[in-house]
Amino acid sequence: MFNKEIYIERREELKKSVKSGLLLLLGNGEASVNYADNAYAFRQDSSFIYYVGLDTPNLAYILDIENDKEYLLGDELTIDDIIWMGNLPSLKDRAAKVGIETVLPFSQLSKLITTPQKLHYLKPYRYRNILILSELLGEKPDAIATGFSVELTKAIIKMRLIKSPEELIELEDAGETGYAMHIVAMKMCQPGVSEREIAGMIEGLAISKGTRVSFPTILSMNGQTLHNHDHSGILEPGRLMLCDAGAENVNYYASDFTRTTAVGGEYSQKQKDIHNIVAKALNDSIALAKPRITYKSVHRNAYKVVFEGLRDLGLTKGDTEEALNAGAPALFMPHGLGHAMGLDVHDMENLGETLVGYDDEIQRDTLFGYKSLRFGKRLEPGHVLTVEPGIYFVPQLIDKWKAEKINTEFINFDKLKDYYDFGGIRLEDDILITENGCRLVYEKRLPVTTEEIEKAVKS
Amino acid sequence: MFNKEIYIERREELKKSVKSGLLLLLGNGEASVNYADNAYAFRQDSSFIYYVGLDTPNLAYILDIENDKEYLLGDELTIDDIIWMGNLPSLKDRAAKVGIETVLPFSQLSKLITTPQKLHYLKPYRYRNILILSELLGEKPDAIATGFSVELTKAIIKMRLIKSPEELIELEDAGETGYAMHIVAMKMCQPGVSEREIAGMIEGLAISKGTRVSFPTILSMNGQTLHNHDHSGILEPGRLMLCDAGAENVNYYASDFTRTTAVGGEYSQKQKDIHNIVAKALNDSIALAKPRITYKSVHRNAYKVVFEGLRDLGLTKGDTEEALNAGAPALFMPHGLGHAMGLDVHDMENLGETLVGYDDEIQRDTLFGYKSLRFGKRLEPGHVLTVEPGIYFVPQLIDKWKAEKINTEFINFDKLKDYYDFGGIRLEDDILITENGCRLVYEKRLPVTTEEIEKAVKS
Repeated sequence: MFNKEIYIERREELKKSVKSGLLLLLGNGEASVNYADNAYAFRQDSSFIYYVGLDTPNLAYILDIENDKEYLLGDELTIDDIIWMGNLPSLKDRAAKVGIETVLPFSQLSKLITTPQKLHYLKPYRYRNILILSELLGEKPDAIATGFSVELTKAIIKMRLIKSPEELIELEDAGETGYAMHIVAMKMCQPGVSEREIAGMIEGLAISKGTRVSFPTILSMNGQTLHNHDHSGILEPGRLMLCDAGAENVNYYASDFTRTTAVGGEYSQKQKDIHNIVAKALNDSIALAKPRITYKSVHRNAYKVVFEGLRDLGLTKGDTEEALNAGAPALFMPHGLGHAMGLDVHDMENLGETLVGYDDEIQRDTLFGYKSLRFGKRLEPGHVLTVEPGIYFVPQLIDKWKAEKINTEFINFDKLKDYYDFGGIRLEDDILITENGCRLVYEKRLPVTTEEIEKAVKS
Repeated sequence: MFNKEIYIERREELKKSVKSGLLLLLGNGEASVNYADNAYAFRQDSSFIYYVGLDTPNLAYILDIENDKEYLLGDELTIDDIIWMGNLPSLKDRAAKVGIETVLPFSQLSKLITTPQKLHYLKPYRYRNILILSELLGEKPDAIATGFSVELTKAIIKMRLIKSPEELIELEDAGETGYAMHIVAMKMCQPGVSEREIAGMIEGLAISKGTRVSFPTILSMNGQTLHNHDHSGILEPGRLMLCDAGAENVNYYASDFTRTTAVGGEYSQKQKDIHNIVAKALNDSIALAKPRITYKSVHRNAYKVVFEGLRDLGLTKGDTEEALNAGAPALFMPHGLGHAMGLDVHDMENLGETLVGYDDEIQRDTLFGYKSLRFGKRLEPGHVLTVEPGIYFVPQLIDKWKAEKINTEFINFDKLKDYYDFGGIRLEDDILITENGCRLVYEKRLPVTTEEIEKAVKS
């Protein structure tokens, strides 16, 4: 939790930005695993934390702009609670620490919103909050999902996208744990070790140092399967282990790194060749990223590096610009170069990815690959982004393009036969856009060349 | 997953037990952390796993008893899914592995339940499932919560309470990981180490070997705070670390152990005295537990051991039977002796704790302490239970009893002043009721005497 002035200032700025109406920020409740009282580790809503700073369940915040009043809604502990839970500070005291004077029982929420003023709420992503809003507003769940306030959403995105100095300290802390997780994973990357064991150990490290992993760890020999949360494999010599993992620190800030390690710590020449292209795409992207240029152009440049690198290996062919316009590199990198990161690893994805990553000037592309770029906007100092190029050989996708004769003028499908069992390589760092360029959020960089990674595995 | 015959037999038995109507088992969906696509590790519903065996999200099972038909409802992967998720077996193939022939799209669920037959469903505990049932049945969420089928619930409880040989193998596996977690915690129990670090490492171990912790780990110097999931303390010499933690294995079976370790591995005499009483309560309970006697009577006996042990130390006084009838030991042990355990650490708590733990013959008590016993029934071979006596010094509770003059004839309140900063001790093992008595589920017992625990800390 930061000083209360920070929360007061943030709410003041939000008030000025939205100007009128009643703002509702609904905190999260507990989420049950297998029965009501067995809950997943509590996670507060990120916008609630950003403006209200309190990380216990079942709270709501109301800002009545026209009457210049604000309320925290939540229930105080009973004497029985105190016997079971110990002496905890009262909600009133905790509210005071974030600069909120008025605390009301949660049940008062329905009265507060009975007003002719426009109610601004954010799009809910938890079923509990959909149910609460549905009951409060007397609307069906479907209507709740579409009735959120674009005005409030945009105002919050604008503020949260620019990271303040105190937020950077938190992001560096999450980065430090993420760094440690990847070093452990590299050292454990030996034949015969199970993916599950490594994933579990690094997840434990994230919990030890903070709250949890910032997203479900991807740790697999099958890096080409992009949505892969299976950890049932046993590491085999000659294979690659793609590990995409990060930590969420005690104040909910995220890190997100990817490294692809040769099992046992020896890359083959074929693996090195692909790894070097991905590393160049990563380094060139970091060198490019700076204020005023669009992230869309950095993504396009990464596609260029991938395309030309693979052309040197004989896997692609033809003119670079034509291939980029046709989206040919997307066969190898069907995802975007990166995303904003902050209190969420995909920052504010709950508020709408396109509202976060695009604007009136920079619109989302529709072409395969390009369309998956989550963030395309012009960069500004204070933006924090992931940079995560990759090259994958996805047999199903190669077969599809080949069968449908997609981009045949740019792809040497015959040569690709030798890569069906290659897997995939991704490398990912987290950057902060500065006044003149960018820097790594956590400045100590993970091993990134094949030589550095080989050394880390064996150290 | 077990052999398909096991699932077929279980469903057959359920069908015979409920006799008529339409049975609906609704599987779980994903639960979002901070945005829709960032989900907590998936956990299937336990009854769904027990009867259907499939552990992916967004499934439902319908058993039409009168027409002797069964259906699995869920959606097959699309070509796009396969590109991102790899070649996974089809739902139809997976259904066949658990003996279900007919697979329908999830959207067909609403049609299937449009029948004059009585629909039996279980009480939902996840908001998603409340929303689905609410929409399916056209009822308000409140009505959904109360409209569940007691008949289906009782039939399932009856079956799931008796653990089969293949379930015991899973429970032993969860026990093995739980054992390893506690050994790690004991070894880390040194001054200056943070509670968070230890809790994180043992949680990582649970994930490494299985799916997750079977419940949020309690690991605290403040063992007297019973509902304590705070891990912000740094271990201090002279204090006790109460660790209540267990694992959920890959097939969702649970373990649940508690040990209370002296920080640094040296108990004071005062700590030993209390620890010895709790250990006696644990051992005597295990010696008593056998078929036909009630767990309620084992709980009462544990209260007896606690009361008489504390009387020897001068903290309680008076006649044992009178004190037990008055509920005096509940000041020190305000919770029950244990609970059923299986696919849930509090087995089937979602189906209703009283339906699981009590019946027409054995009713829940209303007296403080006794009323918290989750399972009071007569024991039967195949029951798996936790045994977890404790002695805590809860200042708020002592003050309350003293102020309200509760049980003053049995408590030496003056002597208790020396124990306000003691904390609490709990010891917990998991037992299986056998034909003639009981045995530990995982037969290798954790260190349990102060000597054994001291040795484990230092080893």
